[in-house]
Amino acid sequence: MLSVVSVEKALSLLEENFYAQVKTEAVPTENALSRVLGEDIISDENIPPFDRTTVDGFAVRAADTYGAGENSPAMLDITGEILMGERAQTGISRGECMKISTGGMLPEGSDAAVMTEHTDDGFDGICLCMKSVSPFENVTKKGDDVKQGEKVLEKGRVLSSSRIGVLCALGVKQVQCAKKPLVGIISTGDEIIDFRNKPAAGQIRDINSVLLAALMKENGCEVISYGIIKDRKEELEDIFLQAMSECDTVLLSGGSSKGARDMTAEIISEKGELLFHGLAMKPGKPTILGKCGEKAVFGLPGHPSAAYYVALRLVVPFIKMLTGNKEENICHRYPLGTDIPSNHGREEVVSVRITDGKVYPVFGKSGLVSLLSESDGYIIIDRNREGVFLGEETEVYFTK
Amino acid sequence: MLSVVSVEKALSLLEENFYAQVKTEAVPTENALSRVLGEDIISDENIPPFDRTTVDGFAVRAADTYGAGENSPAMLDITGEILMGERAQTGISRGECMKISTGGMLPEGSDAAVMTEHTDDGFDGICLCMKSVSPFENVTKKGDDVKQGEKVLEKGRVLSSSRIGVLCALGVKQVQCAKKPLVGIISTGDEIIDFRNKPAAGQIRDINSVLLAALMKENGCEVISYGIIKDRKEELEDIFLQAMSECDTVLLSGGSSKGARDMTAEIISEKGELLFHGLAMKPGKPTILGKCGEKAVFGLPGHPSAAYYVALRLVVPFIKMLTGNKEENICHRYPLGTDIPSNHGREEVVSVRITDGKVYPVFGKSGLVSLLSESDGYIIIDRNREGVFLGEETEVYFTK
Repeated sequence: MLSVVSVEKALSLLEENFYAQVKTEAVPTENALSRVLGEDIISDENIPPFDRTTVDGFAVRAADTYGAGENSPAMLDITGEILMGERAQTGISRGECMKISTGGMLPEGSDAAVMTEHTDDGFDGICLCMKSVSPFENVTKKGDDVKQGEKVLEKGRVLSSSRIGVLCALGVKQVQCAKKPLVGIISTGDEIIDFRNKPAAGQIRDINSVLLAALMKENGCEVISYGIIKDRKEELEDIFLQAMSECDTVLLSGGSSKGARDMTAEIISEKGELLFHGLAMKPGKPTILGKCGEKAVFGLPGHPSAAYYVALRLVVPFIKMLTGNKEENICHRYPLGTDIPSNHGREEVVSVRITDGKVYPVFGKSGLVSLLSESDGYIIIDRNREGVFLGEETEVYFTK
Repeated sequence: MLSVVSVEKALSLLEENFYAQVKTEAVPTENALSRVLGEDIISDENIPPFDRTTVDGFAVRAADTYGAGENSPAMLDITGEILMGERAQTGISRGECMKISTGGMLPEGSDAAVMTEHTDDGFDGICLCMKSVSPFENVTKKGDDVKQGEKVLEKGRVLSSSRIGVLCALGVKQVQCAKKPLVGIISTGDEIIDFRNKPAAGQIRDINSVLLAALMKENGCEVISYGIIKDRKEELEDIFLQAMSECDTVLLSGGSSKGARDMTAEIISEKGELLFHGLAMKPGKPTILGKCGEKAVFGLPGHPSAAYYVALRLVVPFIKMLTGNKEENICHRYPLGTDIPSNHGREEVVSVRITDGKVYPVFGKSGLVSLLSESDGYIIIDRNREGVFLGEETEVYFTK
């Protein structure tokens, strides 16, 4: 019998046993939303690639405008107009200017732009400029935003829409992304039935397999569901081996009977190695971790909220490991609106809701539905503590 | 010429002009992740549907255990075992108990359970019970979690993985979800080229159409991209009419030249009604809203970060309106690490990053890439304020 391990120990066992090179694939930029970046993105260009104006108006030589004002306008010859998308045909010399629109490319010789509202061009080829500008005023210089060779996005970032915009700006056509892990999900237990059916006396709906599948998809995985397997060892063994061969990792869950739990542990021991059996986390005690070949297999608790929180605490970090995802788990600090006791020696995950900016636990006596439907997220009470207290700031992990 | 409107006014114009019944469709529960719920979910069952144990041990009559302790165990006859997924064959009477596993259904006559660790059953059909339990101790009563007829999830909620779990628990096979809005995206501008190409002098990559498509997908839409249209009215008109007929709403963006902007406004006026032209928001001034038939059309600024923030401030709320999405825009309060000045009279959206728990602006002189790649989110400075100040708590909208 293996001893119960802490969550930290479980995470380090995952890291030690399943460290692997991240597998990547090329993905066209426009399809890479939410994917994990598998390479550093280095700009091979200056952005902008040329000096350009940030206003509608006239491209000028700043020096020609010095001293100009409402009552002493500078008089400049308009030598042409810079069309969008085109390079000026000629440069400008002293005393000259060219009409230009926002984003337009400064002509040779020009180093600033005067806004339309500070000019008057109703004088047959002459522009009156009523305001002086300094060099590079109203101009974005070549490379101001990004310099050639600069690292713009790091490997391990998740591609949000704004980062997709960054890739477009750099002209990146396709990116190496981590392959989506394929997760196999097996529910076990004689009492477990498809959630679409009405439970007879003593039966329980299979919530875990759909809940875990959704959670894995939320975290960038693809999922194969292997259905519900009764507590018969041969049957479970066959499906287990099939899942292990087809998927990158497998989540077994469901059977809350002692028999079902033992069977899972037994099969894992026989087909591979049991890394731990028992997790010092509430809820989540009957958690199992095994290694078969180079792959991890998780035996999750039967109770859906326990399975859900163990998946959040162990499986999601493991998926991040597989994909090289370096994003921090986003949490925000909020003060507690009440004391929440806990037991020393094991970590507690507590469902919470935020009311008037304060954190309150969502209790439910095995109240799965209320726990899942009424909470905004969860907090983690460290195993070295005996509770957290009213007014204390705590990190809240949001799940909505 | 229409006057410039505030963001609040723009939002209320959207609401007044495009109020519509939310269109829904039936979606199998297992495929409904991230969809907007189009109906209230009322439980038509009690959950749990029967009294059940929360521990492994023995189902007992609580009264039979009163006074029991380490030195004075209650002696109970073991009359059988309750198998998972099955109803007990018989009930229990005074002085009797039955073996039971976590989640098992209490037999008739039993009202509590004693944990295995407080019992000793090595005595030929007799169970020594070393601890007294009160009625319903270690038991979840029928309907404890959810009562029949109770509203469990409200219309307008977004189905996170935990809410998918809730639907499974209730046995909901399929749900009415809001149809995904179909958004048409058109980029305009002579200077705009496909982002995959290398810009010649004066040209600019089309970032907007891919960035906006990604943002719309992040917000639950489907997208048709109509490509980049040069500043030629007939061509833009044709594509515009096609997009308006095919999609639920259309985003025009790109051309930052005055000509391109005027053309967009002109076409909208001719084919429908211009609701405003000019938004009191920085960035975002050259924003246009039009109504063609019953559909909204947005003319977004050419600068990608302006287009992005206007889309966040106006288009995303509009999409939420179309889908009946009632989720609050999640934001968290953080203190400012510095002053950020702003102009009275217009709202400012400022890209920010969080460093050591404090909010700092990400500045960039038209620095699109740095703005988008380095920010954690944004803050909104109200148009009635002239900046926000060091130490002040402000609401941060996270975009990562």
